[in-house]
Amino acid sequence: MHIELDRNHTLPIYRQIENHLRKAIENGSLKTGTKLPPIRNMASDLGINRITVETAYQYLEADGLIEKKTGSGTFVLPVHGRKTKRREEETAWPHWQFGPLGKIKIENLNRLEDQLQLEQHDSPITFSSGIGDPTLFPIEDFGKTLQRVIRRDGVFSLIYGEPNGYLPLRETISQILAARGQQFAPSDILITTGSQQAITLVSLLILKPGDTVIVENPTYSGASDLFKAFHANVIGIDMDKEGMKVESLEEQLRIFHPKLIYTIPNYNNPTGISMSGYRRRMLLDLAERYNVPILEDDYVGDLRYDGVSLPTLKSLDRVGQVIYISTFSKLLMADIRVGYIISEGPIYEKLVNLKCLNDLATPNLFQRALNAYLSVGRYQAHIKKLTRVYRKRRDFALNAVESIFGQQACRDTPKGGFFLWLGLKDIKDEKLLENNCRKNGVYFGRSYQLLSHPELTFLRMNFAAHPEANIEKGLSRLKKSLADSRC
Amino acid sequence: MHIELDRNHTLPIYRQIENHLRKAIENGSLKTGTKLPPIRNMASDLGINRITVETAYQYLEADGLIEKKTGSGTFVLPVHGRKTKRREEETAWPHWQFGPLGKIKIENLNRLEDQLQLEQHDSPITFSSGIGDPTLFPIEDFGKTLQRVIRRDGVFSLIYGEPNGYLPLRETISQILAARGQQFAPSDILITTGSQQAITLVSLLILKPGDTVIVENPTYSGASDLFKAFHANVIGIDMDKEGMKVESLEEQLRIFHPKLIYTIPNYNNPTGISMSGYRRRMLLDLAERYNVPILEDDYVGDLRYDGVSLPTLKSLDRVGQVIYISTFSKLLMADIRVGYIISEGPIYEKLVNLKCLNDLATPNLFQRALNAYLSVGRYQAHIKKLTRVYRKRRDFALNAVESIFGQQACRDTPKGGFFLWLGLKDIKDEKLLENNCRKNGVYFGRSYQLLSHPELTFLRMNFAAHPEANIEKGLSRLKKSLADSRC
Repeated sequence: MHIELDRNHTLPIYRQIENHLRKAIENGSLKTGTKLPPIRNMASDLGINRITVETAYQYLEADGLIEKKTGSGTFVLPVHGRKTKRREEETAWPHWQFGPLGKIKIENLNRLEDQLQLEQHDSPITFSSGIGDPTLFPIEDFGKTLQRVIRRDGVFSLIYGEPNGYLPLRETISQILAARGQQFAPSDILITTGSQQAITLVSLLILKPGDTVIVENPTYSGASDLFKAFHANVIGIDMDKEGMKVESLEEQLRIFHPKLIYTIPNYNNPTGISMSGYRRRMLLDLAERYNVPILEDDYVGDLRYDGVSLPTLKSLDRVGQVIYISTFSKLLMADIRVGYIISEGPIYEKLVNLKCLNDLATPNLFQRALNAYLSVGRYQAHIKKLTRVYRKRRDFALNAVESIFGQQACRDTPKGGFFLWLGLKDIKDEKLLENNCRKNGVYFGRSYQLLSHPELTFLRMNFAAHPEANIEKGLSRLKKSLADSRC
Repeated sequence: MHIELDRNHTLPIYRQIENHLRKAIENGSLKTGTKLPPIRNMASDLGINRITVETAYQYLEADGLIEKKTGSGTFVLPVHGRKTKRREEETAWPHWQFGPLGKIKIENLNRLEDQLQLEQHDSPITFSSGIGDPTLFPIEDFGKTLQRVIRRDGVFSLIYGEPNGYLPLRETISQILAARGQQFAPSDILITTGSQQAITLVSLLILKPGDTVIVENPTYSGASDLFKAFHANVIGIDMDKEGMKVESLEEQLRIFHPKLIYTIPNYNNPTGISMSGYRRRMLLDLAERYNVPILEDDYVGDLRYDGVSLPTLKSLDRVGQVIYISTFSKLLMADIRVGYIISEGPIYEKLVNLKCLNDLATPNLFQRALNAYLSVGRYQAHIKKLTRVYRKRRDFALNAVESIFGQQACRDTPKGGFFLWLGLKDIKDEKLLENNCRKNGVYFGRSYQLLSHPELTFLRMNFAAHPEANIEKGLSRLKKSLADSRC
């Protein structure tokens, strides 16, 4: 068999042979069942190394084009239905896989499965979760609602709905908000696949690589990771008991001309701090004067344990400066993945289009079931119950910290939400502490150091996720881990 | 201080007081630093309960308008951006809302609600949908599965699962693929929120503004719109009966150094054309030599009506050149929003991280229910049934086109999928035709003109979405609309 080989071609010889034979097989000049020349002969015919021919044959075989029958030789297989073998592990991946890849940069992400990395202990307690106590999710109830909706709506419950979300749900949401003194039309509301998608859409729409984003320091890592992934410079503004130190913001606005301000005014994640009403107005005023959009993340705003509810930035917003996002995943059930954006002005339509491009639609069935669930007032009752339970857990946790750690730990009283912000004194080695915690079966996720409090190491404790007994046990384990880390 | 109170007004008294004071503060008649009357006095002045006044004060304080200094009284705080709530008419939206907004560009999107824009007719027939016939979705069955899973898994069915998807589902998918001669480990599979999100993730990861993307001409607008939204230059390669003319691709690769090749080798959307096995190998070979990743969209690959199944590009891929995406939304039910990516090499982990940043997780309940549904072989039976039904509809549609349009229309026989590609001769005015179609109660979505066939206007007809009677009726309405557009 003669094959034209070009030794100067970028394509290696074995590839040239492989391609030649493949074409021959494809165009039928080498018919099914044809016996190929033995490697030895082909090698000498072409004046090349046997290995080269062998390699070509191997690829063709891996590709399902030919088959080696030991003893009798190598034969052409039927053209269709080809199986392929993966190459061995020493595969050299294509160059493009090693970037520089497009516009995304992903570093040390706080991954969800963090919560699962506790195999070292048989009954671990994790305070690292970002949601409420799953055992309190109204699952039975919601399951029944799902069934009812499927029976009621038939196919309509399972085909794509309106791109901006199921209208009755948007109406119900606008009623719930009205009851809290926020007036927004259903046409201002865009249903998203959880509030994480909402943050993604806003970031995609507003941020260019190199843009600056202002956040609270510290803030929700799922947001700051996202901003950084889009190559934004993230600048954190320190917080005090009244939330973001807005007084020091104006200078940053002047210097960096940020393109976005991301804030969690109610029960900030991770610190649990709430922004004072005065600061809220100040922030809004600055944002308007410097023409910077505010992304207000109110992920758990209606879970308040004491004090009066403060107005959301969005409810104070008169000109469309604020993009408000919230979700039902945190309180109702994590998995329902239904969040929403409230925005006014030209940006609304752009967000809807972007939402379509992102995932076409948020599951219609969940939207309809959620609406059925919300509209009969079950949600409000559910929130009442959660507030009662979580308030008790918060108070219990505060007392437990007091009695177990005394002066060893600082904390404030969160007015709502899930998180207790624990400041531990003179920790020499955070990594060691975390490892000891894992050994002792307690987990808080990453620890934080803040320049404003160099003497403290902070842990975010989700007190809502556990009954009192576990809270106490978990804190004792932390205590022990602290001791282990000292000696 | 005197305040006009209307006891018959729906607005509670404390609200009326609050509003009165707010106005006074905002229009400056109550200056910064002004001391408000003690609650006791105001209450007696107005002849109302102290609590009522106290409540009003509390809201104003929460709003950051006034401040209570224990001992000395309650005072008006400095003004911060207090304009009166603006009315829609006189809206001036913030500058930032008018862009240039970040990295996203959104133009004439093919929106889903296109399907709904037929109010002009009382029994419209739409062939524009991109999914199968919803009335054939196994809804009852799936609803029961949902229930079973909720009872079986309890809370676990409704909290976030693994970031790359529910493992048993990934295992099931890898088994289903193995049965089709594709061997991929569950660890190569990433579950996404429909295949649209899969396209988004790959685009985000790989594309920079100004990058070039190669697609088939024509291709799925949901993908090309997305690439354009990311400021990519989209270059379409013409197709013939064997799919993308890969022969003419190499020159484009040399000139434009594209960063991505997006292709739908099986039953291309919108043309229904399948790429020949020879072209598939050629395309893969070129992609490898020019180091360009291939995004293979196999949205409905297993819906084949005749001929042999051709190997997917991914199954021919030996080096990790191909990123393969598919979905269960098209055949099982649109709303389930579970798709998947298969990718090997470093890019897999990056896609998982990006997936987390995008929407945290794909609904775990759907993943578990889908797995329960798939693993008992129901899915395969369902596909068999659909194939039988849709094949009949395809053949019926082809005959109907023949008998109704004869030489007026060209079409080929799609070997699978949903779409019949109708080429209509000498259409003078597409817009007029579309309007007449709406009037006559039939809808195909946008029409296409191709330079390769200047004499034809193409329509994408989803023959799978309707029973035979509607197909015939719909085509007759098109015939009438053609006539109306001519005279």
